Amino acid sequence: MVDRERNVYVVRRVHFSAAHRLWNPAFSDSENWAIFGQCNNPKGHGHNYTLEVTVRGRVDPETGFVVDLTKLKEIMTERIVSRVDHKHLNEDVDFLHGINPTAENLAIRFWDELKDHLPGGELHRVRVYESDQNFAEYLGMEGKP
Amino acid sequence: MVDRERNVYVVRRVHFSAAHRLWNPAFSDSENWAIFGQCNNPKGHGHNYTLEVTVRGRVDPETGFVVDLTKLKEIMTERIVSRVDHKHLNEDVDFLHGINPTAENLAIRFWDELKDHLPGGELHRVRVYESDQNFAEYLGMEGKP
Amino acid sequence: MVDRERNVYVVRRVHFSAAHRLWNPAFSDSENWAIFGQCNNPKGHGHNYTLEVTVRGRVDPETGFVVDLTKLKEIMTERIVSRVDHKHLNEDVDFLHGINPTAENLAIRFWDELKDHLPGGELHRVRVYESDQNFAEYLGMEGKP
Amino acid sequence: MVDRERNVYVVRRVHFSAAHRLWNPAFSDSENWAIFGQCNNPKGHGHNYTLEVTVRGRVDPETGFVVDLTKLKEIMTERIVSRVDHKHLNEDVDFLHGINPTAENLAIRFWDELKDHLPGGELHRVRVYESDQNFAEYLGMEGKP
Amino acid sequence: MVDRERNVYVVRRVHFSAAHRLWNPAFSDSENWAIFGQCNNPKGHGHNYTLEVTVRGRVDPETGFVVDLTKLKEIMTERIVSRVDHKHLNEDVDFLHGINPTAENLAIRFWDELKDHLPGGELHRVRVYESDQNFAEYLGMEGKP
Amino acid sequence: MVDRERNVYVVRRVHFSAAHRLWNPAFSDSENWAIFGQCNNPKGHGHNYTLEVTVRGRVDPETGFVVDLTKLKEIMTERIVSRVDHKHLNEDVDFLHGINPTAENLAIRFWDELKDHLPGGELHRVRVYESDQNFAEYLGMEGKP
Repeated sequence: MVDRERNVYVVRRVHFSAAHRLWNPAFSDSENWAIFGQCNNPKGHGHNYTLEVTVRGRVDPETGFVVDLTKLKEIMTERIVSRVDHKHLNEDVDFLHGINPTAENLAIRFWDELKDHLPGGELHRVRVYESDQNFAEYLGMEGKP
Repeated sequence: MVDRERNVYVVRRVHFSAAHRLWNPAFSDSENWAIFGQCNNPKGHGHNYTLEVTVRGRVDPETGFVVDLTKLKEIMTERIVSRVDHKHLNEDVDFLHGINPTAENLAIRFWDELKDHLPGGELHRVRVYESDQNFAEYLGMEGKP
Repeated sequence: MVDRERNVYVVRRVHFSAAHRLWNPAFSDSENWAIFGQCNNPKGHGHNYTLEVTVRGRVDPETGFVVDLTKLKEIMTERIVSRVDHKHLNEDVDFLHGINPTAENLAIRFWDELKDHLPGGELHRVRVYESDQNFAEYLGMEGKP
Repeated sequence: MVDRERNVYVVRRVHFSAAHRLWNPAFSDSENWAIFGQCNNPKGHGHNYTLEVTVRGRVDPETGFVVDLTKLKEIMTERIVSRVDHKHLNEDVDFLHGINPTAENLAIRFWDELKDHLPGGELHRVRVYESDQNFAEYLGMEGKP
Repeated sequence: MVDRERNVYVVRRVHFSAAHRLWNPAFSDSENWAIFGQCNNPKGHGHNYTLEVTVRGRVDPETGFVVDLTKLKEIMTERIVSRVDHKHLNEDVDFLHGINPTAENLAIRFWDELKDHLPGGELHRVRVYESDQNFAEYLGMEGKP
Repeated sequence: MVDRERNVYVVRRVHFSAAHRLWNPAFSDSENWAIFGQCNNPKGHGHNYTLEVTVRGRVDPETGFVVDLTKLKEIMTERIVSRVDHKHLNEDVDFLHGINPTAENLAIRFWDELKDHLPGGELHRVRVYESDQNFAEYLGMEGKP
């Protein structure tokens, strides 16, 4: 792990729109309604999501960058946004198959998709906003926010 | 029509989350993709929508209100939000059947649902935000913004 | 009235925080609760207000300004913000005495306070936000938004 | 304390409007004005507050939730919002008696009200926004943000 | 001019970052400082601008669109954003030569650049935000907001 | 270092507008364009920046403050905003000479300017937003967010 002294944290946000449905096929219909309420609507509902990624690292003295944010955005677009934007998260996204697409689970899966593909620095935090009013964040196995 | 002198305009916003798909069943698949692009994804996508309603009228000298905003919100919730929130707009909503659920068409239909049910004042404008970056507004047959 | 051809509209927002109580002393207590609900709490409640002022006029070819926004802000501060910020609107503000401080009434009174004191252009619209979710606007006796 | 490995953090925001006055009855009037400035206005002022609560925990593999956000919002509403919304924080709120209602003190008191009543997970952070420009946060006795 | 009955208005926002300096070379240095204040800093300052374009028209019954917002964004990008983003507005932009780049003048020039190039509908309004706190809008020679 | 138990964190945001150019004079022109892209535009571009400062400390039992936010804002204005607002960051600001004005470097330099001048508490974090979509934060030599 990177030595945390002298670290700077840089943050980039991108946006996508997607449909999803919260349910567990192992539950009965009435259990799904009891647990997930209106989020269990069979035809789905949707959100304007925001994906926020934080990278930590030392500042390169020649560029003044922890990481090139243009390249970071390209990776976020290639590995996440191009696969989830204008999609149905339960139906259309290979790396989300078999999970319930809550903000919590999205944060973990997005972390796994991004972790080894950064153009520099180290992945510190992935935050997924379903709206301005609620979001989830994941910091990896050792993560402390 | 109401005399517009001395009018005050009051505005209330509410939010809902829904899935939708842009397509016209009279078009071929390739036409639908050419016209609607990724918004034509068959399983749908979704948004956090904002519905903004503007009511105009004179200020009641006893209450200081054009319209009681609590009652206005109740009407907006009863006639719109309770029927579209956490729904699929193409599939689940009776008063949207047979239209393509663009922001433009939503604004017109929401206008029709609200126009004769206000608790006071006169409906001036209905605005539907799909996101912070795009929205549509309708002001009725004679509407000038 | 100014010829409206070639007009440009410029808008300035400022913020203030204040307490208020909605009630009418001519009503009984039960009438006040029935009409104003929790906004009638006797000790008051409060908001972060936004005052938004729109001025219309032709662009001065030498400065590129309709109105100097720094001077406009000074007038808004002097005539409104300095008198309402961190105040109780029912108790502390001379030009609001005797009215119920709804957003509608604030918009009209702020209009009256600003109308003849602009550093240029003509007052077009005064908008008062109680929150991101509701606001009122006034455009004067002939106002059309 | 919960093992922090594999934790996910979920965040919920709610809003309320309230009046308050900053002062210490043990100070003289001139001391109160010197320390609290315009926030010491005797009749009070007010804000649109945002209460943001962060809960940490492991993701339930059956639901995909750290905590049911609908239930979390209910607790936040029952234990905080219903007692402070449209109230005067110095006068009307039992669990705030005897403190100066700064954002700092609100964060600590809201933490105490919520800590043992969560529907799941563990309370991680309470943040209280007075406006978009300033806020306070509390993370408990061992809290590190 | 288009018949305004049954019109719907659609709005698209895009963002760009640019440097500018407010000054008039015909003024003396002291006049420039007196009129433009700190906006006259010789090396310039800058903003994150938002360009908001409103198009009015009837809704196409086959597509549900007033105008294809994807195409509208392409035009806005091609004719405005690609020429002003990450530029110095006084130095680098051909269609702004010889004007003082106030928000008022930008709104008029952007209108002229867009008016005859829309992919559908009719240009109704161009709004240029310098920040959340101030902006200018232009509605053409006959424009009434 | 301050005992972190019982700490509360208070946060204040201020805004400024500035021009900047990303480049390293030790690089060739083509290297500068390859690394910094459009941010290397020779005449510069600009942003509406937000500076967010977090101070940690114990709550004074007499005032309810960790730090007087009015005084904190004064320090932020005096030591940072008055020196960078409406300036060109590469040209006009003494304490930024010789660095590339990325958000990362601004965060570190602002930290150094503020660290020993707080009116109370201890500097915990400095965050610099270039826009809503990207920002950098610094927490000092031992900083853990």
